[in-house]
Amino acid sequence: MGIGERALDQHAAWHGKIEVVSRAAVETAEDLAIAYTPGVAAPCLEIQRDPDLSYTYTRRGNLVAVITDGSAVLGLGNIGPVAGMPVMEGKCALFKSFADIDAFPLCVGTQDVDELVETIRLISGSFGGINLEDISAPRCFEVERRLKEVCDIPIFHDDQHGTAIVASAALINACRLTGRELATARIVFSGAGAAGISIASLMLELGARDIVLCDVDGALYEGKPGMNPAQERIAAQTNPRGVTGSLADALADADAFVGVSVAGVLSQDMVRSMAPHPIVFALANPVPEIMPNEARAAGAAVCASGRSDFPNQINNVLVFPGVFRGALDVRARDISDGMMVAATHAIAGMVGEDELRADYILPSALDKRVVPVVAASVAEAARAEGLARA
Amino acid sequence: MGIGERALDQHAAWHGKIEVVSRAAVETAEDLAIAYTPGVAAPCLEIQRDPDLSYTYTRRGNLVAVITDGSAVLGLGNIGPVAGMPVMEGKCALFKSFADIDAFPLCVGTQDVDELVETIRLISGSFGGINLEDISAPRCFEVERRLKEVCDIPIFHDDQHGTAIVASAALINACRLTGRELATARIVFSGAGAAGISIASLMLELGARDIVLCDVDGALYEGKPGMNPAQERIAAQTNPRGVTGSLADALADADAFVGVSVAGVLSQDMVRSMAPHPIVFALANPVPEIMPNEARAAGAAVCASGRSDFPNQINNVLVFPGVFRGALDVRARDISDGMMVAATHAIAGMVGEDELRADYILPSALDKRVVPVVAASVAEAARAEGLARA
Repeated sequence: MGIGERALDQHAAWHGKIEVVSRAAVETAEDLAIAYTPGVAAPCLEIQRDPDLSYTYTRRGNLVAVITDGSAVLGLGNIGPVAGMPVMEGKCALFKSFADIDAFPLCVGTQDVDELVETIRLISGSFGGINLEDISAPRCFEVERRLKEVCDIPIFHDDQHGTAIVASAALINACRLTGRELATARIVFSGAGAAGISIASLMLELGARDIVLCDVDGALYEGKPGMNPAQERIAAQTNPRGVTGSLADALADADAFVGVSVAGVLSQDMVRSMAPHPIVFALANPVPEIMPNEARAAGAAVCASGRSDFPNQINNVLVFPGVFRGALDVRARDISDGMMVAATHAIAGMVGEDELRADYILPSALDKRVVPVVAASVAEAARAEGLARA
Repeated sequence: MGIGERALDQHAAWHGKIEVVSRAAVETAEDLAIAYTPGVAAPCLEIQRDPDLSYTYTRRGNLVAVITDGSAVLGLGNIGPVAGMPVMEGKCALFKSFADIDAFPLCVGTQDVDELVETIRLISGSFGGINLEDISAPRCFEVERRLKEVCDIPIFHDDQHGTAIVASAALINACRLTGRELATARIVFSGAGAAGISIASLMLELGARDIVLCDVDGALYEGKPGMNPAQERIAAQTNPRGVTGSLADALADADAFVGVSVAGVLSQDMVRSMAPHPIVFALANPVPEIMPNEARAAGAAVCASGRSDFPNQINNVLVFPGVFRGALDVRARDISDGMMVAATHAIAGMVGEDELRADYILPSALDKRVVPVVAASVAEAARAEGLARA
């Protein structure tokens, strides 16, 4: 039985991957009087007096909404909000399993940016944080930016930033392993959508300087016609050597390839054209830009992919549980660039000097030691930036 | 230590009365591949093909949203959405404890009817039903009516209908006990807000004919100036004898008083002016229109109140768990008047002929035998009306 059939059977048996349970026993009249009327009036009035007490008297401080509009679910595309819910529930199950965070899945029945932002804003008071999920680019940029402006709780689009953090941690360790400096490494992207732009942005924060993003029309550069606003912004911050032309052109002598595009766009010849012992991250799912074994055969020193059946899986589960755990622990009002940089270094640092190998540049996605380390770093960064409220 | 202080301590210790847990173990790479990528794509695609399968492959079929705008929380008034959350969480804890329903609390940060309706509509695909809570009248009527039009899942405003069902069940049994017929009983209301109108509407469905609603300006009658649309509708269906004047005037020779107004408006003299052995339901909370012992001293044969420290507590917890359990069990597309009538008779029928006494016209709020009986009746009514989808 294939994985799809097994997944269907198991999903039918689970009948939902999350469950809402009661933390309050309600067996006696006294229980009822404390958990409900008349006793419950007291915490209500306290929260009315000081809304911050919602973190003391309700579940809010441990509660994250996982929200989609179903417009870009996995690699399935725009399958609609209700059809996206198994992914949202899965994410919630991971939040709980990895970080003891209560996460609740919500789908919003609109793909209009204004409606999406307004709907999420209006329910944000129910939560301690919001994880946006599987919202298509370039809409996802505006949705996230506007929500960060109008909400006073952390907003995190995992498809952008989760991927950016784990890919950047992997690149830091790949550079360590191959004797490169991030500041001087030539890094070429295939893909200038949400993930590509977000990874490139974080790598700039981390000190990378020579980044070139390519899409199907070749290298992005400042002033190139036909770019969307997010591409215009990243083009202005990258490509310092003014590279033009195709992906193949850009890859000549490059130190690292980061693919967040489609299957098969990286040939072995293109790998051979890169600098000696190059780094190849081929993250398209489920079929990468080049299979890791082919990349290695063409000379790649370190490979990573999105696949669990090869070493060095770039998996967001290394990121979002710890990032939100840290943000919730200090009741951060935002998840800032600095907090993401801290998470990146924390994940990279989980691989010790004596452990670092071409097939081990990241901890396992199932390594439960990761969350507390990431959470502590993120919390510390929030405090340092004055974003912590507890 | 008073109940308020104990409730605060206990709420701080609970740190939330609900919790979202994972039903899917995620310990191995295989677990991850089934609960999340790549396996999760299979249920997503199935739901895209047939949205009804969201009830098979996600938690939706057992999931109810408990939603407020914080405009009429308990007797506290308009304390705002976030401050209302301890009540919503308490309700969710009761849903789980009494009916094994997963209920999730949400507050919406607007009190504009259009925004409220639109926000709830847009997230309704995440749930199997929606319990509206503590939304002020007359806004609540329009919010509920419009949501019932645009959503294909059950919408239930508990403050209206939960109260109506349990009060009507109590009235049926009070009539049984005092040898009255609902069809001929003269029933006078104090209070023509959401609860009063809703109780009166259900009593009409149940066969009551001689109902007079009074507010601070006295009896409502068709064409009376200054009424809101909901009051105009109920005025046209009630007061067949064209009673005018004050509550005291309307009460002369009345068989039953139903108070959903404010403390102390019913005097002992007014009780004495009623028909012999009258029925007095004084439901204002926490201080009723008349204390039950005072009503009895003035001749009332049967009294009920909202208080747990007197017999015959009119408590919605007898209603909403069973009503939603029944609706979810058959995947009802609505909660109809007929389903509410069925719930009413089911609750009334829980008190056997040999048990019925002046101090026992309703089962205890904590009687766990109630939910399955109510659920079965509601489910049967849904099937009979063609509202069941499973």
